[in-house]
Amino acid sequence: MFKLYYSPGSCALASHITLEEAGAAYTTERIDFKSNQQNSPEYLAVNPKGRVPALVTDRGILTETPAMLAFIAQSFPQAKLAPSDDPFAFAQAQAFNSYLCSTVHVAHAHKGRGPRWATEESSFADMKSKVPQTMAACFALIERDMLKGPWVMGEQYTICDPYLYTIAGWLEGDGVDLSRLPKVAAHRQRMQERPAVQKVLADEKA
Amino acid sequence: MFKLYYSPGSCALASHITLEEAGAAYTTERIDFKSNQQNSPEYLAVNPKGRVPALVTDRGILTETPAMLAFIAQSFPQAKLAPSDDPFAFAQAQAFNSYLCSTVHVAHAHKGRGPRWATEESSFADMKSKVPQTMAACFALIERDMLKGPWVMGEQYTICDPYLYTIAGWLEGDGVDLSRLPKVAAHRQRMQERPAVQKVLADEKA
Repeated sequence: MFKLYYSPGSCALASHITLEEAGAAYTTERIDFKSNQQNSPEYLAVNPKGRVPALVTDRGILTETPAMLAFIAQSFPQAKLAPSDDPFAFAQAQAFNSYLCSTVHVAHAHKGRGPRWATEESSFADMKSKVPQTMAACFALIERDMLKGPWVMGEQYTICDPYLYTIAGWLEGDGVDLSRLPKVAAHRQRMQERPAVQKVLADEKA
Repeated sequence: MFKLYYSPGSCALASHITLEEAGAAYTTERIDFKSNQQNSPEYLAVNPKGRVPALVTDRGILTETPAMLAFIAQSFPQAKLAPSDDPFAFAQAQAFNSYLCSTVHVAHAHKGRGPRWATEESSFADMKSKVPQTMAACFALIERDMLKGPWVMGEQYTICDPYLYTIAGWLEGDGVDLSRLPKVAAHRQRMQERPAVQKVLADEKA
């Protein structure tokens, strides 16, 4: 039995969907960002970084979305969520997820998390104003070079798909025109037809 | 036969060391950041992101350090550079590397790569001035919670070690006092005693 700590609207959605797709037994606990619960002593004991997601397993606690996604996939190999028996194909999936966490999520975070990297209000405003441009550039590359279709890695649905879906869900809020990203838009539609995605979205809204 | 594109002083050092530790057959090609070679049409054909490292394999090109490190480890299992047969232990290694790429490297990058995320000179200066603080905070967490010793994951040297060594090599330049990080400093020393590390450092200097 796993326990996922998440916050609605956060990148934890990718792990939440993946647990559901894998058929894992899991519970969830919501962390309230508005009351800064992620920095409470109780939660810092779970994840000293003060971030979501975190996954409690019987071996210990895991953090960092790309690591958690691969762990869930490898713990439920029958769900075929990652090409773990092919190091090159697995690395391609890992490279995609690594790009999402280290470049795309980071670009997005400059909209509301400026104090992580600067001190002045003028810097926060400057960072925020560049987000439409940086997120559009990231997704132009995904649209052109990375999203093979119908799923990220091609014919097989993998752990890259819920992660892309999660971060692409921020595009309108980041001021990016989705009509210029037809493959990303079609991927979103395809994701929303999956029962696991529908169930998780309903759970996170409840 | 692999080919590694790198730039001296960049995070590509982690992959370079890992190729050497694995006993891989590989060549290297240096990309000159001073002449902006990473954005030349020739290099963008290798890596459209305009970044190093990139690894040319007989199956295609890989990018993103965490993915490349795991790929090298899994391609040379006899070198025992990652606990690939234990999904939880593998996830712990991946989580460490994911933290390095998405949080620590990103914190460092705000020193010299401000134009990625903002437009004004005042913002770049503000970002740069916060780097000693953000890098010190990242490494305080690594020192306290993550670096098990003697190696990152404990008794076994893994793909986490050259990546930590690489990014910790930026600490003095980032204005962080290494004397407050005795485990990180001892890890650096231990790394520099390894023949593979000595060979790669000499190659990158040549």
